[in-house]
Amino acid sequence: MIALFTDFGMTGPYIGQMKAVLYRHAPNTAVIDLMADAPSHDPRAAAYLLNAYAGSPFPSDTVYLCVVDPGVGGSRRAIAVHTERGWFVGPDNGLFNRIAQTAGQLDCWEITWRPDALSASFHGRDLFAPVAASLAGGDPVPGRAIPAQSVFDPTWPDSLPEVLYIDHFGNAITGISADKASPERGLRVGGMLCRHAMTFSDAAEGSALWYTNSNGLVEIAVNRGSADQVLGLARGDRVELV
Amino acid sequence: MIALFTDFGMTGPYIGQMKAVLYRHAPNTAVIDLMADAPSHDPRAAAYLLNAYAGSPFPSDTVYLCVVDPGVGGSRRAIAVHTERGWFVGPDNGLFNRIAQTAGQLDCWEITWRPDALSASFHGRDLFAPVAASLAGGDPVPGRAIPAQSVFDPTWPDSLPEVLYIDHFGNAITGISADKASPERGLRVGGMLCRHAMTFSDAAEGSALWYTNSNGLVEIAVNRGSADQVLGLARGDRVELV
Amino acid sequence: MIALFTDFGMTGPYIGQMKAVLYRHAPNTAVIDLMADAPSHDPRAAAYLLNAYAGSPFPSDTVYLCVVDPGVGGSRRAIAVHTERGWFVGPDNGLFNRIAQTAGQLDCWEITWRPDALSASFHGRDLFAPVAASLAGGDPVPGRAIPAQSVFDPTWPDSLPEVLYIDHFGNAITGISADKASPERGLRVGGMLCRHAMTFSDAAEGSALWYTNSNGLVEIAVNRGSADQVLGLARGDRVELV
Repeated sequence: MIALFTDFGMTGPYIGQMKAVLYRHAPNTAVIDLMADAPSHDPRAAAYLLNAYAGSPFPSDTVYLCVVDPGVGGSRRAIAVHTERGWFVGPDNGLFNRIAQTAGQLDCWEITWRPDALSASFHGRDLFAPVAASLAGGDPVPGRAIPAQSVFDPTWPDSLPEVLYIDHFGNAITGISADKASPERGLRVGGMLCRHAMTFSDAAEGSALWYTNSNGLVEIAVNRGSADQVLGLARGDRVELV
Repeated sequence: MIALFTDFGMTGPYIGQMKAVLYRHAPNTAVIDLMADAPSHDPRAAAYLLNAYAGSPFPSDTVYLCVVDPGVGGSRRAIAVHTERGWFVGPDNGLFNRIAQTAGQLDCWEITWRPDALSASFHGRDLFAPVAASLAGGDPVPGRAIPAQSVFDPTWPDSLPEVLYIDHFGNAITGISADKASPERGLRVGGMLCRHAMTFSDAAEGSALWYTNSNGLVEIAVNRGSADQVLGLARGDRVELV
Repeated sequence: MIALFTDFGMTGPYIGQMKAVLYRHAPNTAVIDLMADAPSHDPRAAAYLLNAYAGSPFPSDTVYLCVVDPGVGGSRRAIAVHTERGWFVGPDNGLFNRIAQTAGQLDCWEITWRPDALSASFHGRDLFAPVAASLAGGDPVPGRAIPAQSVFDPTWPDSLPEVLYIDHFGNAITGISADKASPERGLRVGGMLCRHAMTFSDAAEGSALWYTNSNGLVEIAVNRGSADQVLGLARGDRVELV
């Protein structure tokens, strides 16, 4: 299986063009949109989201085709990373840093292959998609093995205490690992303090709460309402467990 | 076939995670996104939309995986419903009430199976998706048959006279069955009165009209314009045939 | 393969209903969303986008199911067009004009077949989707051959100097063919003048640039920012190479 994780947007022509490339190279491989609105231009925030959402229920031979790539067309390398959670293909800009930090086994490659025609702005289609399709078919990485320490920074913290993503409900997903957050603690965001609840309906209608979301991150919601509107939240806002 | 009807949004990680579960359990079953922006937190409005959009062109053995579930993690039951239009899997909160009311044949089950790991906030992925995949494969419901009257309220009216959905064009889909609406009647919404037309181009450019949409509901549009902007419409606005 | 190019929006029930029809008629044919937010109600602008985005990486036997159709339900014809880039099925309203103008080989048909039930507002589902599925299966067009000059206007210019589309990043895709635009030229839009760059990171962070996008159109972007917000751009804005 190939899972797409990008900041391209579900609309527009980009996801479709990538899928056309994947279909040409791997017509029998399932392709699933994991996320098309990862934090734009922000590989660091995207890295924390990817680390939470890669893995089960996706199988361990999944190829994650990941593109949050503000430096496309510049000098950043193209890489492929293999861990016990699967393959990760994309730019060498920190996007896979949390995947690497949490990996039990870790192997890294620089992708040195280049297509005959490589646009300056859409390596997702021209470079990463053909490589992802090739890996899904069992072929070796078209490149050279590189040491992990040449790619990853081991000093990133386990949690990123900010709003990573506002979902369709207006819930705010933070970069805080819920295993750091005991239910007695409050969550401060803006001038507000949210208390913990197990699920939405444990809070009064219209009230804010924080809870452990279904992928292990601390998330802020309002029961039957929109946390981003009620609390005035936006991506990048700082949050703090108190 | 499995059809997805949720209020999760097409963006974000939720639809993708459900599809990964469906693929794991039913890799040869087609999965189609019917609607990912059903009325949020509003199973009643969603029930009228679902009743209009379930059925042809979807085949009669379709499994509709439906999640509009503000009470997730609380005490509401999980149910499966079978009618001549197919299977419906989701929460017992009214979401299938119109499907049941209009069914020629109707069988109901409480889903008693639970996965080893059940998150408090994402039963769509953890509970309903595995059951939907199982039903698509021809397995029996993992639960117990229950009488329909224990689940459904037979007194809901045939029409819900409000705006259920604003589409990408700005057209406003109402919950009024068009077979209740003769073309001589006007439709009052806000302080405005719209007249009937067969299709968009039968009204002057920029003019509002109501018409019978392609699924039998009364819909409000503006020829080559956005009804929601021109008329100031929002989901939940009351409408009235006059 | 069938590629969908519409102004229906990715959300809502329309794309899903079309896919259900395609699946019923052509269950083994891959279907890819090329674009669901083509310029609404504007077949002329959509024609320039379609011409840029049809073709590679889509295979040359692709059936493009294209619906930007403000005159649906009126008297406009339904047509099918075949070129060396594949099949194009949709309304006869100019949407395929650029495809026809740039075609090496060109054959045109009027689709005269009608389904038993044809809604007034959703020919994408009721008429064009069954025909597209049929063509993908190798069947002949259910209609009659017509001369190209009865359908197309050969006088449309090679470029449409306006903003055709604002993408998820806020980049503005114009209808100007990049082969008309040497890098020495500036691009005037609103009161602003943008200079050329090869890719985003060649401009200072927050600065506007124009560049040749990955499908050969002139596009306006802001490095790590949103061109539409920074420059106040909207679809339809005039642009000028100076």
